[in-house]
Formats: sequence, structure tokens, C-alpha cells
Amino acid sequence: MEERLKKQMEFALEIDKEKNILRQTHLSGFGRRENDAEHAWHMAIMAYLLKEYANEPVDIAKTMIMCLIHDVVEIDAGDTYAYDEEGLKDQKEREDAAKERIYSLLPDDQKEELIALFDEFEEGKSPEARFAKAMDNLQPLMLNHSNNGGDWKEHKAKKEKIYKRQERTKLGSEILYQLTDQILKENIEKGNIE
Amino acid sequence: MEERLKKQMEFALEIDKEKNILRQTHLSGFGRRENDAEHAWHMAIMAYLLKEYANEPVDIAKTMIMCLIHDVVEIDAGDTYAYDEEGLKDQKEREDAAKERIYSLLPDDQKEELIALFDEFEEGKSPEARFAKAMDNLQPLMLNHSNNGGDWKEHKAKKEKIYKRQERTKLGSEILYQLTDQILKENIEKGNIE
Repeated sequence: MEERLKKQMEFALEIDKEKNILRQTHLSGFGRRENDAEHAWHMAIMAYLLKEYANEPVDIAKTMIMCLIHDVVEIDAGDTYAYDEEGLKDQKEREDAAKERIYSLLPDDQKEELIALFDEFEEGKSPEARFAKAMDNLQPLMLNHSNNGGDWKEHKAKKEKIYKRQERTKLGSEILYQLTDQILKENIEKGNIE
Repeated sequence: MEERLKKQMEFALEIDKEKNILRQTHLSGFGRRENDAEHAWHMAIMAYLLKEYANEPVDIAKTMIMCLIHDVVEIDAGDTYAYDEEGLKDQKEREDAAKERIYSLLPDDQKEELIALFDEFEEGKSPEARFAKAMDNLQPLMLNHSNNGGDWKEHKAKKEKIYKRQERTKLGSEILYQLTDQILKENIEKGNIE
């Protein structure tokens, strides 16, 4: 096998491990915890279906691949819950080391390309990154809402922190932020959010 | 919420169920069985990374969304193992009914669009469909090979049937078919394939 293809296949096999990284979100129907690969799959489809609501026009291929790969670093760094203050402190350091190790499996040009996409996503520097980040919020919000806010209740999540995080959705899509706000208000009313 | 967005969100929530549809393939590292959402996520990333090997140039956004949604019908129809003769008989009938029910959750234009993409994939009528089908073969082949052919051994899969199915990969990518052939030969030699 040619060296280039061999490297691409090694990366493809390595990322299989993402299916074992569990998130705090539970599947609909009061299901088990979701893993990173499932979350990314769901985000990419939602990005495709909801692209008409992006604040700015987006290149949908770029948005989808961003969604699909944004959690690859968690293979080494683990999932950091959105409201875990301790974990958030060294999240960037852990993820940077993971990024270097995992993407180095690829041929150099693809390593550079995927790291650039990941950084662009993290920094929210483009319409695609901002819309992908909106999906990163909306997808678990949708699941959690379908489970009567079970994940918020479990973590005793506070209204202020949730709103602070969800603010990012507004940068990607005003319309989807309105939907978010509506869902949050409903869950506050029900007592699912403190 | 506007009716259109409501429908889109209903579909987005419905497809969450795909995470509970188990395949015959096992995760690398002799892991648990893989589910449809994980498989689709993996295929879409592989399509992006390996697109240079497609026999014909592909629109990568179209290829990725095809990969991501191609198993949605299995929410109702279940997974049919590639070498399950009985299941294969009424697979199309079961999947057609599922397709109609599930995609009808979407606004009409998106229902039409996604059904057209699914049909195009099934029939292999475009470069994108043929390349996506090559990924549908290569992704489980890669996992199975990493597990020393465990899935072939479990199902006592016959060489002829495996080759027949893998022929489809050639239509999408001659180069990835060469890789497939190399992997199959290695597994036949090891006695993993009868």
C-alpha cells in the first residue's frame, strides 16, 4: 500500500475510538449516554438541514466536516462537560496535545487542513465555525429537552451559565437562538433548570 | 415556532433513534457492536479524507450527506446484514415504507431532496453514490480487519460472497478496491475467511 493511503487509513482507524468517548447528554427516549461520534453525526445532519437559518451563507461541506471532526481530540483529552469549571481550566492544553498526536497520523497536507478546520471551529472565526458551534449547542439541547431536561436536572445546571453558553448560538443563527430561548424558558418554567 | 422549523426539528429528533440500530460490525479493539449513526459518521469522514481516490470527481458535500443519511430507513426497517439471504429478500420493501414515513416528517422540499439522495445512493447512479457505496464497504472492512476478521469468522462468511459485495467498491474507486483485495487476501490466508 502506498505510504499516503496507509497514513490515511491509520487515521481513519484511530478515530474509531471516538465512539467510546461518552458525553453527559442522554439519547432521546431517556436512553443511554451519547458518544462523541454520534453527537458529531447528528450535528452534521442538522447543519445540512438547518443551513437556511445561518446568519451568514455557509459552505456546507466545510461546515459538515467541521462538525464531524470537532471532537476527535477528545479521544485523548476526554469529554469536558460544558459546565465543569475544573475541567474547563486545562481543556485547551489537553486538547492541543491530542490534536498534535492524532492529526499527525495523516499526510502533512491533510494534517494541516484538518487542524486549521479544528482551530477555525474552536475560535469561531468564520460563518461555518459559528454555525457549527450553534449545532454543537442545539443538538444536545434538543435531546435534553426531549428528555424533560434530565441532563440539566442531573447536573443542577444554573440558568445563567446555560444562557451564557447558549449565547454562542446567536452568533451562528439568530433564528435558532430564538428557538433555544423558547426551549430554555419552557424548561425554567417546568423547574428543570434552577 | 414556525411550522417549517418545527418539522425540521421533529425529523432531527426522530433520527436520534438511528443510534440504537446495531450492525454486525464490531468496533476496533474487539469492541462492542457498532450502530448505524457511528457507521455513517465514520463513512462521511473517510469519504472526505479519501476523495482523491474516487474514480470520478465527486461533489464532497453531496457525498457526505449521502453517507450520513443512508441508513435512516433502518430506524424502522432494521439493519440487514450484507450476507443475510433471507433478510435481503424483503429489504427493499421494508426500507421503502420506512423512507416514506421518516422523510415525510420534513418540509416537502427537503423530503424530496433527501429521498432523491437516498435513491441515488441505493441505485449507485452518480459518482457520489458510487463513492459513498465504496465507503459503505471499506469502513466495516477496515474495522473487521483490525479485529482479525472476527465478524467474518462469526458469520462463517464465504470468500465468493464477500468478493461479490466488494465488487461495488471498484465502481467507486479502483485504488480502494486494490486495498480491499489486499486485505481480503490477507484474511483468506489467515483462515479468517472460508
